[in-house]
Amino acid sequence: MIEFWYEFGSTYSYPAAMRVERLAAQAGVAIEWRPFLLGPLLHDQQGLEDSPFNAFPVKGDYMWRDLQRICDQEGLALVHPSQFPRNGLLAARVAIVGLDAGWTPAFSRTVYQANFVDDRDISQAEVLAPLITAVGADPDQVLAAANSDPVKAQLKDHVRQARERGLFGAPSFITADGELFWGNDRLETALDWAVRHQNLEQA
Amino acid sequence: MIEFWYEFGSTYSYPAAMRVERLAAQAGVAIEWRPFLLGPLLHDQQGLEDSPFNAFPVKGDYMWRDLQRICDQEGLALVHPSQFPRNGLLAARVAIVGLDAGWTPAFSRTVYQANFVDDRDISQAEVLAPLITAVGADPDQVLAAANSDPVKAQLKDHVRQARERGLFGAPSFITADGELFWGNDRLETALDWAVRHQNLEQA
Repeated sequence: MIEFWYEFGSTYSYPAAMRVERLAAQAGVAIEWRPFLLGPLLHDQQGLEDSPFNAFPVKGDYMWRDLQRICDQEGLALVHPSQFPRNGLLAARVAIVGLDAGWTPAFSRTVYQANFVDDRDISQAEVLAPLITAVGADPDQVLAAANSDPVKAQLKDHVRQARERGLFGAPSFITADGELFWGNDRLETALDWAVRHQNLEQA
Repeated sequence: MIEFWYEFGSTYSYPAAMRVERLAAQAGVAIEWRPFLLGPLLHDQQGLEDSPFNAFPVKGDYMWRDLQRICDQEGLALVHPSQFPRNGLLAARVAIVGLDAGWTPAFSRTVYQANFVDDRDISQAEVLAPLITAVGADPDQVLAAANSDPVKAQLKDHVRQARERGLFGAPSFITADGELFWGNDRLETALDWAVRHQNLEQA
């Protein structure tokens, strides 16, 4: 098992979300999807009020080019969103609602598609509603649940867990034996680690 | 051809320096070694007065663990230096002196070994002198050349080039057609790019 920690505004979380299930299935490793918010961590750990890719343009310029190369390699479309980063709060709450019913992975992929391909404002309920419908859930019920106190508390708890476990970026992967891997480019390494340490996991 | 831009104080430059020649030979790609100083870029681009791995401990904790995993995988020893980052100015000037004679790669590898395995202070001439001897050069002559105005100017020019070409971290790789790749974990991708774009290179 590995936990997949992702943020809907995060660029490198997009290819990770699109390939994590396929690579995990090939490796025989289960994935637990862990939506969280990166903004509070960037603020508290590094004093950032914005994405580091906006705060430091030289890093942003590189990231967009690097992401384009990765998407080209993976056969994924990419459109530089007209707003970056987009606020992933509501989408993350919706993703938490779907965890028990099991539609969180499919929903999350459509949110990344909306943000990074269709250039839609994923912070808006009316943008998310058809994506909820598309995974077979009821948008009114789900959006109401997403704005309920227990779901808000669960997302806060994800952020707390992320902080306590040393996350500082997205996507991140944590194996059952507690190894942290940061970045889309560490997905293969994290899966390999999980496979090689399965005995520990089963002990 | 790819240019290998590296900084002697940089942790991820260590495994990159150790594996770049082997992987490049396998890919049939020539390597041009480009020692530079990262500190001025980190300062001017991000306002950093220290390594980001010191300024942001959560990133530092992760980096040392990640680097350990990488070194384990590559069969490279790693000792957390008692001083980090070490000042790579003199070593970078020495590396520039060796470019024409061709001993820069071998010398650079011994400097990384000194810093990240033997925990020696690579900012000191007496630490570098035996490393210069070991690659068949004369330490007195080389250290005098390293402190000459033309070599100082050449290192400054490397830093200027790095800045102009969008570098913000080390190691970085630039292909003949101008693609920038950042990080030890992008070495394979950079070599693959160089191979796939050889026609452009020869054109």
